[in-house]
Amino acid sequence: MKIREVRITPIAFPDPPLLNAAGVHQPWALRTIVEVDCGDGLVGLGETYGDAPHLKLMRAVAPHLAGHDVFATTKIQRAVQALVGEKDAPDLHGLTGRSSPEKTVSRVFSPIEVACLDLQGQATGRPVHDLLGGAVRDAVPFSAYLFYKYAAHPGQDEDPFGEALTPVQIVAQAGRMIQQYGFGSIKLKGGVFPPDEELAAVRALREAFPDHPLRIDPNAVWGVETSQRIAAEADGLLEYLEDPTPGRAGMAEVAKSASMPLATNMCVVAFDHLPEAIELGSVQVILSDHHYWGGLRQSARLAGICQTWGIGLSMHSNSHLGISLAAMTHLGAAVPELSYAADTHTPWQLGVDVVETPLRFVDGAVPVPTGPGLGVTLDRDALARMHEDYLRCGVTERDDTTYMRRTFDPEFRNTSPRW
Amino acid sequence: MKIREVRITPIAFPDPPLLNAAGVHQPWALRTIVEVDCGDGLVGLGETYGDAPHLKLMRAVAPHLAGHDVFATTKIQRAVQALVGEKDAPDLHGLTGRSSPEKTVSRVFSPIEVACLDLQGQATGRPVHDLLGGAVRDAVPFSAYLFYKYAAHPGQDEDPFGEALTPVQIVAQAGRMIQQYGFGSIKLKGGVFPPDEELAAVRALREAFPDHPLRIDPNAVWGVETSQRIAAEADGLLEYLEDPTPGRAGMAEVAKSASMPLATNMCVVAFDHLPEAIELGSVQVILSDHHYWGGLRQSARLAGICQTWGIGLSMHSNSHLGISLAAMTHLGAAVPELSYAADTHTPWQLGVDVVETPLRFVDGAVPVPTGPGLGVTLDRDALARMHEDYLRCGVTERDDTTYMRRTFDPEFRNTSPRW
Ligand SMILES: [Mg+2]
Ligand SMILES: [Mg+2]
Repeated sequence: MKIREVRITPIAFPDPPLLNAAGVHQPWALRTIVEVDCGDGLVGLGETYGDAPHLKLMRAVAPHLAGHDVFATTKIQRAVQALVGEKDAPDLHGLTGRSSPEKTVSRVFSPIEVACLDLQGQATGRPVHDLLGGAVRDAVPFSAYLFYKYAAHPGQDEDPFGEALTPVQIVAQAGRMIQQYGFGSIKLKGGVFPPDEELAAVRALREAFPDHPLRIDPNAVWGVETSQRIAAEADGLLEYLEDPTPGRAGMAEVAKSASMPLATNMCVVAFDHLPEAIELGSVQVILSDHHYWGGLRQSARLAGICQTWGIGLSMHSNSHLGISLAAMTHLGAAVPELSYAADTHTPWQLGVDVVETPLRFVDGAVPVPTGPGLGVTLDRDALARMHEDYLRCGVTERDDTTYMRRTFDPEFRNTSPRW
Repeated sequence: MKIREVRITPIAFPDPPLLNAAGVHQPWALRTIVEVDCGDGLVGLGETYGDAPHLKLMRAVAPHLAGHDVFATTKIQRAVQALVGEKDAPDLHGLTGRSSPEKTVSRVFSPIEVACLDLQGQATGRPVHDLLGGAVRDAVPFSAYLFYKYAAHPGQDEDPFGEALTPVQIVAQAGRMIQQYGFGSIKLKGGVFPPDEELAAVRALREAFPDHPLRIDPNAVWGVETSQRIAAEADGLLEYLEDPTPGRAGMAEVAKSASMPLATNMCVVAFDHLPEAIELGSVQVILSDHHYWGGLRQSARLAGICQTWGIGLSMHSNSHLGISLAAMTHLGAAVPELSYAADTHTPWQLGVDVVETPLRFVDGAVPVPTGPGLGVTLDRDALARMHEDYLRCGVTERDDTTYMRRTFDPEFRNTSPRW
């Protein structure tokens, strides 16, 4: 079962003005849809970043993959490695930590591997999770991912979530999201306002949702001392504290006194970060993300490392659509080590998708698909429309910082640590 | 695709009087053949230890696995874990390190997983390695596994390999084995004679085979100081030194001054040994063994850990037959991290097997099968005959030490360290 063609299609879809440490989301989020075509109507799907340097690499690699067997994913990984070489395609926001050639190879290979697993599943009549050892849960729990946000992009109508700049508005956002999706845990994207303001929002969430585990993620813009102080004040309040401060050494300093586990998707984002992080005790939870850890099988290997060293496992998310949600769900189903509800941006995409029937959320979890492959089908009309939007929208790279400066706050600087 | 029945058949086959630190091989080696039967002629094969306590556990677990989906191996692993509980089934020889409930579960689950992967491969028309990411090599290299040995068991005819108690005889054994199989590297099982005598045998091998990488494995019967001395004297002679001394702390002491990597299949034999071994720097090479690491997928996870921490990966072997050889070959094909030729006892079984057409060796390597599943078929006549031999032979547990005392050396003691 050989690859005949790998099609690479960049797309854009509307994104609300969500705030984070790097600035604010642009009106268009970008993704690249990967179709691995074996002929005879067999097409596997992958989804990855849409930033121009990454897209360029995807386009450079794709034509060289024809002829590979879709079951030979490790060979394909090596081919990608040889093609990418020492190239590095960093993103501008830096919200998933530093880039490296290793991480770049993993980012390019990941959607190819997901598409190959989709094809393997279709060809064998088995869901993708069965290719990873089978499901150990019937549904994969996700968390309510709250953002500080403006009411609208300049010149646009307000989105249904409206403004969220205060604890009261954050609680309202959580209420709406939980009512709609049934999430059983809550994450607040922080790093936007001074830490004490954000801690006040967490306290307000605790008051409003006494039984929901809570997390906050300031994306490493707090200094070590600030992190230590906030961790002490948040004692008993958080299931984990995500990336309070930059670097494995800084995180280890904070971890020494923090009563809650520290989590990361910034200071441990590639296998070669693990030895130092484990030696220093930098983190107690890793947010895996198959998009940059090199696909589903490599993510399962990461899970094995987490289990061996007693590190908790959660799942990170950027803006994504239904192919990635399916991939995350199959992986989450097959990995017993997943010890926390996973992040997802799904609610923020307001129903827009590139697949015909996206996986549904039931009581805050996605029931694990049992049909062949990923269990989602490309909506070709949507793909064409979203590709048109990509060509028209003028965004070619995610740049929260520049957009923030141009539209909302000319003084904004993406510095770290900031507080 | 559900399990209908799991059949457990203990078998025995002739074994030459091979010497090791625990004593000498009995005239019969034991294995347990596992058949996972899904009906409609679909049967998957696994092979594991034949010792009575292990066999008892296999028999206790088997009836409870009916109804499980053969793709749901992680669920099956959990079921095995629940069934085995805190039970421990240590072996008498101790040549693969200490037993534990974790290792016991892994040992029981392993042949079930291999049989399920065989079935998955048969059902999907793909070789087992394709279920692990595909082959990255066309053939898996094995090493010539030399043993000190007596010419014959008491009252039996001499086997074709004859006596090997001196450097000259060891070199002759290597010559015969290399001529027959084409092996490109050589391992000497040591721990039998005083270390300097065994080092003399290694030197004789170097002289006779100047280009073959060499290893020696005294199964942890040397003290730390002896190990340090021998390591110093063997500078430039060995590709690795295997388990010179007991324990992760002792190995770390030796590793500090040894110029060659230290390898183990004794002080790191379960995932929970890895953190300490890595912290101490106990070993630079791990000999994986799917029979006690919990199957092929868990072995691939171990490979990922080895890669992440820059630890070399080789493969351990006990007396085994063609099902295990096939499993080792598929795993070795799929794991890019395998950095050394694997061990195998195949030559010592002198052509006896439980499969119809065992995989062949070509130039010291086993060409990777490309047909569905493991690529070997059970020889039912051989199985029946070998089961008869099991019932007749009187051996129910591998006990090299008692056999040594009863037949060759009443004074023998299995102590460690011995030198
Ligand atoms: Mg984060
Ligand atoms: Mg050994």
